[in-house]
Amino acid sequence: IISKLPQTGTTIFTVMSALANEVGAINLSQGFPDFDTPPRLVELVNTAMKNGHNQYAPMPGVMALREQIAQKTERLYGAVYNPETEITITAGGTQAIFTAITAVVNPNDEVIIFEPAFDCYAPAIKLAGGIVKSLELSPPDYRIPWDMVRRLINNKTRMIILNTPHNPTATILQQEDIDELSAIVKNQDILILSDEVYEHLIYDGETHHGMARYPELQKRSFIVASFGKPFHATGWKVGYCMAPAFLMQEFRKVHQFLVFSVNAPIQYAIAEYLKDENTYLSLPDFFQQKRDHFRKGLEQTRFELLPCAGTYFQSVTFNNITDEKDSDFALRLTKEFRVAAIPTSVFYTQGTDHHVLRFCFAKKQETLDKAVDRLIKL
Amino acid sequence: IISKLPQTGTTIFTVMSALANEVGAINLSQGFPDFDTPPRLVELVNTAMKNGHNQYAPMPGVMALREQIAQKTERLYGAVYNPETEITITAGGTQAIFTAITAVVNPNDEVIIFEPAFDCYAPAIKLAGGIVKSLELSPPDYRIPWDMVRRLINNKTRMIILNTPHNPTATILQQEDIDELSAIVKNQDILILSDEVYEHLIYDGETHHGMARYPELQKRSFIVASFGKPFHATGWKVGYCMAPAFLMQEFRKVHQFLVFSVNAPIQYAIAEYLKDENTYLSLPDFFQQKRDHFRKGLEQTRFELLPCAGTYFQSVTFNNITDEKDSDFALRLTKEFRVAAIPTSVFYTQGTDHHVLRFCFAKKQETLDKAVDRLIKL
Ligand SMILES: CSCCC(=O)C(=O)O
Ligand SMILES: CSCCC(=O)C(=O)O
Repeated sequence: IISKLPQTGTTIFTVMSALANEVGAINLSQGFPDFDTPPRLVELVNTAMKNGHNQYAPMPGVMALREQIAQKTERLYGAVYNPETEITITAGGTQAIFTAITAVVNPNDEVIIFEPAFDCYAPAIKLAGGIVKSLELSPPDYRIPWDMVRRLINNKTRMIILNTPHNPTATILQQEDIDELSAIVKNQDILILSDEVYEHLIYDGETHHGMARYPELQKRSFIVASFGKPFHATGWKVGYCMAPAFLMQEFRKVHQFLVFSVNAPIQYAIAEYLKDENTYLSLPDFFQQKRDHFRKGLEQTRFELLPCAGTYFQSVTFNNITDEKDSDFALRLTKEFRVAAIPTSVFYTQGTDHHVLRFCFAKKQETLDKAVDRLIKL
Repeated sequence: IISKLPQTGTTIFTVMSALANEVGAINLSQGFPDFDTPPRLVELVNTAMKNGHNQYAPMPGVMALREQIAQKTERLYGAVYNPETEITITAGGTQAIFTAITAVVNPNDEVIIFEPAFDCYAPAIKLAGGIVKSLELSPPDYRIPWDMVRRLINNKTRMIILNTPHNPTATILQQEDIDELSAIVKNQDILILSDEVYEHLIYDGETHHGMARYPELQKRSFIVASFGKPFHATGWKVGYCMAPAFLMQEFRKVHQFLVFSVNAPIQYAIAEYLKDENTYLSLPDFFQQKRDHFRKGLEQTRFELLPCAGTYFQSVTFNNITDEKDSDFALRLTKEFRVAAIPTSVFYTQGTDHHVLRFCFAKKQETLDKAVDRLIKL
């Protein structure tokens, strides 16, 4: 059989988590917490099941949840989305991203992505017959080179994929980025797919420059968000997509035949849980403490820390330690020092010279401490 | 924006369920039960959540569940699937179908489907750039015209999609069908996608002729199954796909970037629940009683009953009642007589002259009785 994705192996997240389990390493690779989902949220799911919410949710999602999302979005970002026609619940952020790309990228359409890039973007574009146009971002600040974006754009440019806060680099878009982007897309037929699954994980009082804040951008954007990341329930696989009705209509045409609908009891539970805005407004403090604690620990090691403005990832360089490639070093670190990290070079389709590891700090303090104890030995 | 699926509207299941809710009709349209998920299964999900199984499941699924599926498949059908490489848990049967098609259908590949066909097949084929080759099945017996299949096959034929027990017609493949199919695909490069989500819902002691029973077919088949249908939990959205490793490898390349992984606590719960084989072996009796009761009721009406060998759907013709098209009649039936059904003509891409309605009998006896009381008035 001839593969449609001949270059594609198993995603790095599966590879590293499997290796971490195999060798008993502390797993700071794949992005998920080692502490539990809030008990109240678990109880709400249980209640929803006991109340009989166990059959198909409506195809676009449970209305009460869509309404909560619309209210939260308007409150936080000022954008008004119609829950009837502009919000769809998905089986996680990844499904939303795949669906948006599949819905609007045609064969030979060009899609601009910025690397390092979350590894699901490029395969989805290729499966739609689209062409990946990637631009490389460089440490330490990983800023988007807007002049190069401008040069890449032509009449085949269908979409630009953004991700803020950015995984794996932990950077966030700034007002200048928004201004540049707005100038570029204005009067052009270019769509935006904005992966904002870490929207609530932004530190030092910075602003989340999501597409919903900017009408010129919002009107051409699919915005993707997640409940797994903010609510410490990555295994529940519920997220959502927001887009203007003319885009959401195409999104749903694919969604209804790709998954039809999404886990019903969890939707009812989250609809209830979202009524208390503290459930997400408390997150920056919660995770910033972890970030600061982990950074302080890492400062005792020979790693050099990169900035971390958002997400729950901390990246480091390691020129003082070794000149191995990050993927080789990540394997050795896992096997010999029993701390698993993600080598970020795998997120560049053409490879890269940068040697950068990404650690997930969504962990109990004791886990972070134990990891630092091991990393100090390097 | 130019739609990639210009002919596609909202799926009939969403349309009819929404209308049923709006007018307060008894909803025998979309296929889901109006009785509850087994309390023990709900409790197992709750336990899994309380035990902290709330983070990412492994990309191919929780191993304990894959092992249970392998054991069940070997016990029932004699086929040995390696849970490591040949079974993947999906976000429902629909996601499995979409993923299999996306993984192996290339632009201009031809895919043979039999109509009436579950409405997700054709859009998935089209989105992959494939060409839908549909053959029409006719009431009352809806047998596959194998001579016509033979004539359709050429070197662009990539896949044949089967569905047994068949939705919406409630027919099942017979040994003659298997023999014909085996002769056709032998020594050919043709894959099979076999939608077997109703495998446990077969009546009158008949045999489920699934692909896993026949090595010549099994070795080229994606077999799709569901937990929502057998366990009265259509809203949980967990199913699976089985295929030989060379096919499963391609399936997972797409799966990992389409949804990454599937709801974790539910996988743990079902793994436990499956240990008692009575949970599924009791289903034919359970649903056959409903089928027989509903058929007896319908015999008092002016509908003519078609056979029902499997699934939880009963189809009827209505030449004695009206010569309206089934889609017009279904709307009127819902609004005026307040019983919702699915008009099966929507499952033919080129339309059809057959006037057939499909009722779902996965309902409490009192619901079926109430529906019959209304249908008698016609
Ligand atoms: C989809 S598994 C990866 C989880 C994640 O977002 C990450 O580790 O970057
Ligand atoms: C995917 S919603 C439809 C449920 C179903 O299988 C049916 O009604 O045929």
